Amino acid sequence: MMDKLIKEILKFRDEREWKQFHTPGNLSKSIVIESAELLENFQWGEEYANIENIKEELADIFIYGLLLMEHYNFDFNEIIKEKINKNKEKYPIEKAKGNANKYDK
Amino acid sequence: MMDKLIKEILKFRDEREWKQFHTPGNLSKSIVIESAELLENFQWGEEYANIENIKEELADIFIYGLLLMEHYNFDFNEIIKEKINKNKEKYPIEKAKGNANKYDK
Amino acid sequence: MMDKLIKEILKFRDEREWKQFHTPGNLSKSIVIESAELLENFQWGEEYANIENIKEELADIFIYGLLLMEHYNFDFNEIIKEKINKNKEKYPIEKAKGNANKYDK
Amino acid sequence: MMDKLIKEILKFRDEREWKQFHTPGNLSKSIVIESAELLENFQWGEEYANIENIKEELADIFIYGLLLMEHYNFDFNEIIKEKINKNKEKYPIEKAKGNANKYDK
Repeated sequence: MMDKLIKEILKFRDEREWKQFHTPGNLSKSIVIESAELLENFQWGEEYANIENIKEELADIFIYGLLLMEHYNFDFNEIIKEKINKNKEKYPIEKAKGNANKYDK
Repeated sequence: MMDKLIKEILKFRDEREWKQFHTPGNLSKSIVIESAELLENFQWGEEYANIENIKEELADIFIYGLLLMEHYNFDFNEIIKEKINKNKEKYPIEKAKGNANKYDK
Repeated sequence: MMDKLIKEILKFRDEREWKQFHTPGNLSKSIVIESAELLENFQWGEEYANIENIKEELADIFIYGLLLMEHYNFDFNEIIKEKINKNKEKYPIEKAKGNANKYDK
Repeated sequence: MMDKLIKEILKFRDEREWKQFHTPGNLSKSIVIESAELLENFQWGEEYANIENIKEELADIFIYGLLLMEHYNFDFNEIIKEKINKNKEKYPIEKAKGNANKYDK
């Protein structure tokens, strides 16, 4: 599924000759920009959100994220699993349970 | 693959009783925060980036994105395909080719 | 006051020969990065904020903002007044009173 | 000058009864959102920037920043000077000169 999806994203990009703009730095800026647009739904509270807009901004974040992932030849499954494992060490259950404090700082 | 991955993320979250903190607004803030940490790799140019750090920040963005997606019962494949289709209309090949201007604005 | 402050910021920058890194794009990235660090104080709610950290992140945002302002020869007082005037038109009192909706969208 | 400017911003806010929305967390989100809009000028490079838009986004960042500053009773001059002094220790001239690396990390 993931391979097919990435192929579609690359096809969209290449038909427009946009690879030249997609440096890692520019893709990272794009992810920040889209995620701030997502956040705009919650600027004044949780109650003003527009689900259709959230869906689109989240899709944009994923698309730019997959392009960055593809640039570095990262594997979606692998980098997420590795990060979960790292988080398990950083936030052991007994210390982290019900706790939003960043006690590790 | 995606289902299994999301299950692991939810297991990690639930073992720590963190669902209470994961409102859509807080998840959106988290995506912005992680994507700014990703951007920090490119703050002064493309040449200072730390690949290991990029991998981790990107994984964090995906993890919070998947949590938000799960909250709204969005489907990964579906929202991305819908967004690509929308972008195809917004950026027709003949106008967009090799062009980084946001001519639609 | 503002002139003296900007002079001190420029002195700090020039002693370190950092002007070369301070393109408008890099300064803009820096403002985003610092403002996400500010937001980190409120990632999981309003109650976890660290006032000392807020003070520092806000100062960083102002410093990078003043550097960008100086780059373009903008005047602090002037651009803010112009923006307030624009907002007055965009958000007339009778429509905006007590209302967080972005009705202009 | 600063006092008069802040008074104007507060007047604009109070005429619209918007203080209720301006929690520190919401102001911080707003600064991130505006700074991402500023960054949008540089999404694909330094050459596409719109000066008028930069002026407005920067003014928005300053306005929300001043509102946050006012909330905590910070002094503009003071917090910036304190931060410069801190940066002087963190980035001693001899080590920092011409160097964009975050060697302190």
